[in-house]
Amino acid sequence: METVQVQASRDYPVHIGSGLLDRCGELLRNITDSRRCCVVTDTTVRKLYADRVGRSLQDAGFTPLLCTFPAGERSKTLSTYGEILEFLAANHLTRSDCILALGGGVTGDMAGFAAATYQRGIDYIQVPTTFLAASDSSVGGKTAVDLEAGKNLVGAFWPPRMVVCDCDTFATLPPETFADGAAETLKHGLIADASFFRRLLAENVHGWLPQAVRRNVEIKASVVAEDEYERGRRKLLNFGHTLGHAVERCSGYRVPHGHAVAIGMVLVTRAAERLGHTPAGVLEEILEANRRYDLPTACDYSAEELLDAAAGDKKRSGDHIDVVVLREIGRAETVRLTMAELKEFVEAAL
Amino acid sequence: METVQVQASRDYPVHIGSGLLDRCGELLRNITDSRRCCVVTDTTVRKLYADRVGRSLQDAGFTPLLCTFPAGERSKTLSTYGEILEFLAANHLTRSDCILALGGGVTGDMAGFAAATYQRGIDYIQVPTTFLAASDSSVGGKTAVDLEAGKNLVGAFWPPRMVVCDCDTFATLPPETFADGAAETLKHGLIADASFFRRLLAENVHGWLPQAVRRNVEIKASVVAEDEYERGRRKLLNFGHTLGHAVERCSGYRVPHGHAVAIGMVLVTRAAERLGHTPAGVLEEILEANRRYDLPTACDYSAEELLDAAAGDKKRSGDHIDVVVLREIGRAETVRLTMAELKEFVEAAL
Repeated sequence: METVQVQASRDYPVHIGSGLLDRCGELLRNITDSRRCCVVTDTTVRKLYADRVGRSLQDAGFTPLLCTFPAGERSKTLSTYGEILEFLAANHLTRSDCILALGGGVTGDMAGFAAATYQRGIDYIQVPTTFLAASDSSVGGKTAVDLEAGKNLVGAFWPPRMVVCDCDTFATLPPETFADGAAETLKHGLIADASFFRRLLAENVHGWLPQAVRRNVEIKASVVAEDEYERGRRKLLNFGHTLGHAVERCSGYRVPHGHAVAIGMVLVTRAAERLGHTPAGVLEEILEANRRYDLPTACDYSAEELLDAAAGDKKRSGDHIDVVVLREIGRAETVRLTMAELKEFVEAAL
Repeated sequence: METVQVQASRDYPVHIGSGLLDRCGELLRNITDSRRCCVVTDTTVRKLYADRVGRSLQDAGFTPLLCTFPAGERSKTLSTYGEILEFLAANHLTRSDCILALGGGVTGDMAGFAAATYQRGIDYIQVPTTFLAASDSSVGGKTAVDLEAGKNLVGAFWPPRMVVCDCDTFATLPPETFADGAAETLKHGLIADASFFRRLLAENVHGWLPQAVRRNVEIKASVVAEDEYERGRRKLLNFGHTLGHAVERCSGYRVPHGHAVAIGMVLVTRAAERLGHTPAGVLEEILEANRRYDLPTACDYSAEELLDAAAGDKKRSGDHIDVVVLREIGRAETVRLTMAELKEFVEAAL
């Protein structure tokens, strides 16, 4: 087991390794006196791992509770969020109890938001079971649910007390879901570490997963430590996301997040090369990386469709929007565009 | 206009005076570059004041939006909260826009929670139109909605950017609603300022409302400055609330909050005198004060009923509960009770 310490408004450790699901209880006992721990998970992950985690909690002296919701992004609503909260209240969870989010990004975001707001905030830990969640959403304290009007439009910044990444769990992922994690991993290399990106191109990440997760977490942690509430540098993590989110929206969320980000990285870099923000040649490496990890490199939407979808992005502020571009591989910067400039940008992206 | 500055994770001013509804826009313009401001209010307050506030915003260069929900505590649900959020999203409110909560405690709590969580937090200001909200809930940054399982079980700590108390608005309150504010005012005197309490007994507060609101805000601000997140001293503001909440619950929330707190102050002080926490004679002064302000002094519920209701209180932590008692008029302290001791306490309260 390796541990990365995240510096935030409250510091927390991220443990990465093998067989850690059976050690959740012990690791949690080291940091809390809680009596009860409510495991929040979805119907798929429940079948795979809930028993092991429950046993581990029990062995460490916790009384585990289990709150399950139907698997899938469609569950990430205020309605499911309300059901989780009513479950916590009906079971008289108190401010000194805690929540364990067991699953992918949907579970982590939603259980985290429930923890952030139940009784104005109780402790929670993240136990991500997908490569994507371990490499991205479980670290950084962003929690969210979707509105009808758009994804992740409601949420809070609420750091977990601990993150436990058991890399064994990624073995059961369908290839497409694994590729989602690869996309965010490539993104971390592209914005912050050229040699990490080039290793991902040279050696398939399946052979060095715990190391890759560790590097992902380190990169994300260093960004979050500087800018927990996304006022500046943290925006760099949104590389590929402004147009990626637009692709997700245009597809009615049928294109999964990582795949959309992969397309978004291609689109933004094509536009940025054409408009002089990014040196020539970067796009070619991104295209190669996407192909290496079975990620898409294009989409069928028109500039008008993408622009419409991008204009509602929550990164938009007043009448401008911040878009992240690469100055070179391993170094990203934010460019502020007016809505008119965004139009030109999107047209150059296709 | 007088101003009290509240020290919190982000400082903010509380303006108190006459005719301030017409100055909301100007006061808000001093602290924000926002273009748009969404006024959240209920159907009752909308008719009385929304036009004036909207005009004031417009005159100061804001584009006002208006989001209304049905008046009453029954609206303080996740469902209304969701409607407010969908309204904000449908109107493309961005992170640099803001919310203005216009109304009583329900409006302030719910609009504040929407502000705390829309796009992970946007600015809001409180414009309380009841004596209770001006004296209590609009200051301190607690936001909340109710669950089916209980009141205020979901929420966040999210300080407003500014509070504007126009004391003229209290003139239109029904006497019962005014008395709710008097109860929290008495509470502030009881826990922190004996001479304020004795002035409330000697001179009807109707004659010196702006001064009373100011003293309420000062007392609350000094407590919140020391302990924004209610880990210690802020709990003293809960004097009368543990049993007050129990009374509210037992009544199915037909007893209004201030009335329930008035009863709660009597009950907790009777028990505290009998069990040696509070010197004799304090209860008598509280009974006199309640009568002075047409507040109730007793309830019909049995010890068992109150105990059941109190056991689910969110101030409960693990197997104990913190109850606030008076050491003398003007000085409060927390007493930690086990569930067995709480039973004895409630039995001594009737």
